[in-house]
Amino acid sequence: MILITKSNDKAQEIAQKLDTNNPIKPVFVHENRVALAGVKNLPDSTLNEISQYIVETITNHHPAIVSSRDFHPNDSIIKTNHSIIGGNHFIFMAGPDSIESAEHVLEMGRQVKAAGATILRGGAFKPRTSPYSFQGNGEVGLKAHRAAADELGMDMITEILDTRDVDLVDSYTDIFQVGTRNMQNFALLKALGQKRKPVVLKRGMSATIDDLLNAAEYIAAGGNMQIMLMERGIRTYDNKYTRNTIDVSAIPVLQSLTHYPVIADASHAAGVAKFVTPLALAATAAGSQGLMTEIHDDPAHAFVDGAQALTPEAFSQLADKVRKIHDIVAHDNLEY
Amino acid sequence: MILITKSNDKAQEIAQKLDTNNPIKPVFVHENRVALAGVKNLPDSTLNEISQYIVETITNHHPAIVSSRDFHPNDSIIKTNHSIIGGNHFIFMAGPDSIESAEHVLEMGRQVKAAGATILRGGAFKPRTSPYSFQGNGEVGLKAHRAAADELGMDMITEILDTRDVDLVDSYTDIFQVGTRNMQNFALLKALGQKRKPVVLKRGMSATIDDLLNAAEYIAAGGNMQIMLMERGIRTYDNKYTRNTIDVSAIPVLQSLTHYPVIADASHAAGVAKFVTPLALAATAAGSQGLMTEIHDDPAHAFVDGAQALTPEAFSQLADKVRKIHDIVAHDNLEY
Amino acid sequence: MILITKSNDKAQEIAQKLDTNNPIKPVFVHENRVALAGVKNLPDSTLNEISQYIVETITNHHPAIVSSRDFHPNDSIIKTNHSIIGGNHFIFMAGPDSIESAEHVLEMGRQVKAAGATILRGGAFKPRTSPYSFQGNGEVGLKAHRAAADELGMDMITEILDTRDVDLVDSYTDIFQVGTRNMQNFALLKALGQKRKPVVLKRGMSATIDDLLNAAEYIAAGGNMQIMLMERGIRTYDNKYTRNTIDVSAIPVLQSLTHYPVIADASHAAGVAKFVTPLALAATAAGSQGLMTEIHDDPAHAFVDGAQALTPEAFSQLADKVRKIHDIVAHDNLEY
Amino acid sequence: MILITKSNDKAQEIAQKLDTNNPIKPVFVHENRVALAGVKNLPDSTLNEISQYIVETITNHHPAIVSSRDFHPNDSIIKTNHSIIGGNHFIFMAGPDSIESAEHVLEMGRQVKAAGATILRGGAFKPRTSPYSFQGNGEVGLKAHRAAADELGMDMITEILDTRDVDLVDSYTDIFQVGTRNMQNFALLKALGQKRKPVVLKRGMSATIDDLLNAAEYIAAGGNMQIMLMERGIRTYDNKYTRNTIDVSAIPVLQSLTHYPVIADASHAAGVAKFVTPLALAATAAGSQGLMTEIHDDPAHAFVDGAQALTPEAFSQLADKVRKIHDIVAHDNLEY
Repeated sequence: MILITKSNDKAQEIAQKLDTNNPIKPVFVHENRVALAGVKNLPDSTLNEISQYIVETITNHHPAIVSSRDFHPNDSIIKTNHSIIGGNHFIFMAGPDSIESAEHVLEMGRQVKAAGATILRGGAFKPRTSPYSFQGNGEVGLKAHRAAADELGMDMITEILDTRDVDLVDSYTDIFQVGTRNMQNFALLKALGQKRKPVVLKRGMSATIDDLLNAAEYIAAGGNMQIMLMERGIRTYDNKYTRNTIDVSAIPVLQSLTHYPVIADASHAAGVAKFVTPLALAATAAGSQGLMTEIHDDPAHAFVDGAQALTPEAFSQLADKVRKIHDIVAHDNLEY
Repeated sequence: MILITKSNDKAQEIAQKLDTNNPIKPVFVHENRVALAGVKNLPDSTLNEISQYIVETITNHHPAIVSSRDFHPNDSIIKTNHSIIGGNHFIFMAGPDSIESAEHVLEMGRQVKAAGATILRGGAFKPRTSPYSFQGNGEVGLKAHRAAADELGMDMITEILDTRDVDLVDSYTDIFQVGTRNMQNFALLKALGQKRKPVVLKRGMSATIDDLLNAAEYIAAGGNMQIMLMERGIRTYDNKYTRNTIDVSAIPVLQSLTHYPVIADASHAAGVAKFVTPLALAATAAGSQGLMTEIHDDPAHAFVDGAQALTPEAFSQLADKVRKIHDIVAHDNLEY
Repeated sequence: MILITKSNDKAQEIAQKLDTNNPIKPVFVHENRVALAGVKNLPDSTLNEISQYIVETITNHHPAIVSSRDFHPNDSIIKTNHSIIGGNHFIFMAGPDSIESAEHVLEMGRQVKAAGATILRGGAFKPRTSPYSFQGNGEVGLKAHRAAADELGMDMITEILDTRDVDLVDSYTDIFQVGTRNMQNFALLKALGQKRKPVVLKRGMSATIDDLLNAAEYIAAGGNMQIMLMERGIRTYDNKYTRNTIDVSAIPVLQSLTHYPVIADASHAAGVAKFVTPLALAATAAGSQGLMTEIHDDPAHAFVDGAQALTPEAFSQLADKVRKIHDIVAHDNLEY
Repeated sequence: MILITKSNDKAQEIAQKLDTNNPIKPVFVHENRVALAGVKNLPDSTLNEISQYIVETITNHHPAIVSSRDFHPNDSIIKTNHSIIGGNHFIFMAGPDSIESAEHVLEMGRQVKAAGATILRGGAFKPRTSPYSFQGNGEVGLKAHRAAADELGMDMITEILDTRDVDLVDSYTDIFQVGTRNMQNFALLKALGQKRKPVVLKRGMSATIDDLLNAAEYIAAGGNMQIMLMERGIRTYDNKYTRNTIDVSAIPVLQSLTHYPVIADASHAAGVAKFVTPLALAATAAGSQGLMTEIHDDPAHAFVDGAQALTPEAFSQLADKVRKIHDIVAHDNLEY
């Protein structure tokens, strides 16, 4: 349940009073709201004691209580060194699928920065369908990625696959990325919940909206509320012409339920470069607050997923159109 | 197989020569191209006879041969009394879900026309999930719909459910609509293939892109190539917050494969009014060449599907944004 | 709502009294139960008048009221000239996909009869994905099919595609079959509701359990309650190794909700002959009350769907195992 | 590629010769077959050197090369202290969803053992959708589980969620279980590949057959080939009456492609106790080589998933029918 109290101070006070130190019934405070996770109702005696400080009680909130608009009505704004994410801001995360070399990631970063990206993406640990595919360059990749981001004045985002690597990756990256296959790797989500660093959580291939919010809640429950949700295409009955089916409706639906920024990855949704642009434009028009895009200057020789990589030029043209569309829709789709 | 000949005249000549009058192996001509449906290759003797007139032979075309870009590389443009559909044109089809009364459809038509719609939609025969739901006003509805369209100078579009009603509906409407549940009602598609009037074919709930093209081909095979394809949301594993999942990727994918105009119905995709606008904008950004939208001035009392109806005011605001987005994307997404 | 009355006579009496002759609010009687379709509650004055004859009132029934167990608690048993269908009976419908010739259907019928089939299947009107595929032999096929069934002392079942063909097909067949693509062709379902002849209704490719029951209700609402429901595989995200995904859970779920016999078509579910047997056995173990199986003595040269046809020998071996499994599960799965 | 050599010795010799020590191109030997993972073809000079020892070369094998029938044509048989798994053997894994107490798991174990189970299931680490649900009793649960298994002379199986827990869980369990949400947690799969202990790998909610085989290959690539695959229901468009849709076709399809035992979990597929029995029977009839079933003596008060738990009595009755059906189908469905 959520209690709306008369003041921020009262919220803190009541939270402390009601906290039972039960690990699956934590208590959270946002401004004048107190969230009692896992609690359906309070004993009458308790309610009587605090009722004079309570403006409203909400019990029909989403089970992902911290993630819900009922707990946090305004948009979450996440600030990193080089980016402001959320609300009516729009950010571009772009870069190669995998870190191939220090030179390559630097050059790709330079080009996407010129097109407007402030966050440089790239994978050092790659979750490949087959164990016999290139698995990423590991820490060597992380170093190169960090160096490129520093040189260019960009934020770094990279995927984390293993709880044992959290501290290692943490020592390099600005933003953690949890991939679609690990959306319900709860051990990993809990570990990231202990960090105080932004996390991009990609929607699982067949995750419902509720699944995604509950997964985000695993991170938030640890106290880390710097979360971005990413729509990247879902699995449906038809994948002949595109790799996945982008679910643009997830964008406004999520924004109506949660305060976290919602970002789209049109590259994995499309799976083929020629459809990345229309899908990215569609996601923007649906209200996406950012885009993640894979780019490569020589897609045919990319180490991973070259078929879906945009050239830097195509990305630059895409970014121009995206900004125009975002200007048209920005204020409207966020009125939840 | 498709033969590209040296001239339009030669195409006609060769088509006549090769036509075997086999009903499942018809021959079609578009400009200098001859489509031999159901034919994989020709005997050497025949090929030798005509080879001097053949520029190119295409055998890896889509099985929906008439519908394919290989047969008809340029966009199909469909002209009705009040609308030009296809290419970089953008049209609005709007109106109430069902024809409730002569006054109501006229008033709704007036308002959507003011917002830019040229095609007035409305159902007289309604395919309801339950037999105990309102089934539409039948011919009374058709008459009222026709009268409103005439008075306003708009085109009329209405759904056809039964082969036995084709002539009746034909006597009223300007455009036939085939609904999602009848996408593979091949008897109905064949009957419409005998007409020379535009048909909107809605994608089935779990129809693949190929299924949709093959269904369109049933109409085209009868000689009626005035076809529009409509994406209206597909069935996926998550329908808690929206009725269906709009597949915006279907829009550029279809446009890459076929010359028919592709139009989106965000109303049925969303199922709830508050998500119709972002989905309609997304479909437009993905390259949709038109929108079908359900509107109602009193959604709470609509006979059918009030939950997803936009008010006329909301539709008008939507249309303004759609036009702006269409201007940004128009030329690009059609470069297939 | 459903009223359980004190006697069958009272049920008739009350039904007549409450019938408003509103076509979408029909009244039905089964033994001592009265179903008031489309009615949520009765005025108090009416209730008072009849309350002394009412044992119980049910309002939380399935919307497909006539099809529900609340209206008709015991299993429906359908009797044809050569078959008893429903309850703990098990029937085999088998034969070629399409009627290829009089000799062929007779020979196939002879072999499936020897294996235990009492219903001879075969298509004269074929709903093919492409208009350029063989569309069936039409009335010539119907005649040959009828002659074979008569000669062998079997029931005939064949698919109906078009409302305009209902009387024609009716003049030949013993059982109508509505295919997956027409499950929500409501005009066709209504036409069959006017007949008094059994109908097999195949589940649509992405029809929910509720969709299927509501579609059946379209037939029942016309007064024809001789309905069999057929699970034939649904469309999911994986169709690489089988054509569809057989949903065996639909069998007990349907049986818990409706009194109609539930039958499985493993041929279309599998799509390849080598998987037909395990799927047919699975459906039987899940409680299916019959099987429809496509057979062909020369699958490689079958006119339609040869890949999924069992040879008559394989069918005979399958039927033996099916009978053994049915004996093990017969009494249990029907205890709903 | 796979090389079939003239003898087991030659296979070893050739394997050593061709091994490049490239971690994503490992070499495996099974009897007289050599699997060269990630290798499409060999240089002519190499082929010439070894050609006299090669009987056949297979290049169209499944990418999950070690898991494929091409590499390992006969069924894998896995032997634990109390169970033989695979081939025509049939095993029951049963027990409570979570380890609630030492007494409870012992009593549940006693009852399932009496019904024929040799493997005692139970969760100490629970992957719950919400962080505010009971997360399992951790090591306390593992200890109680181990004690019960030892006292009863049964094998223990429990779920592993975190790479950091692999050694801890290894010190207690006989069989590792990887749940549906971690099917593509490749870090975890790799860690289990380093163990020499059986692993049950549950199919992901929307994993294709190929995804599942490739995930298994992550374990096998580490040298641990004691793998069982588990079908537990997939996510489809309809989950109103059952929690998931059991895909029984996966059973024979997997058995045609891989040598690993395939087992079904009807409890999670059904989600409600009344449908567990028909689904378990169906899976058995489809050829499943075992069943995992959740049981509880007081389902209404189970800590987790009580709705789908069978009572011990219902499980005992189920097991009797399962054995009868397995006898009917055992030899046939395995003839791949």
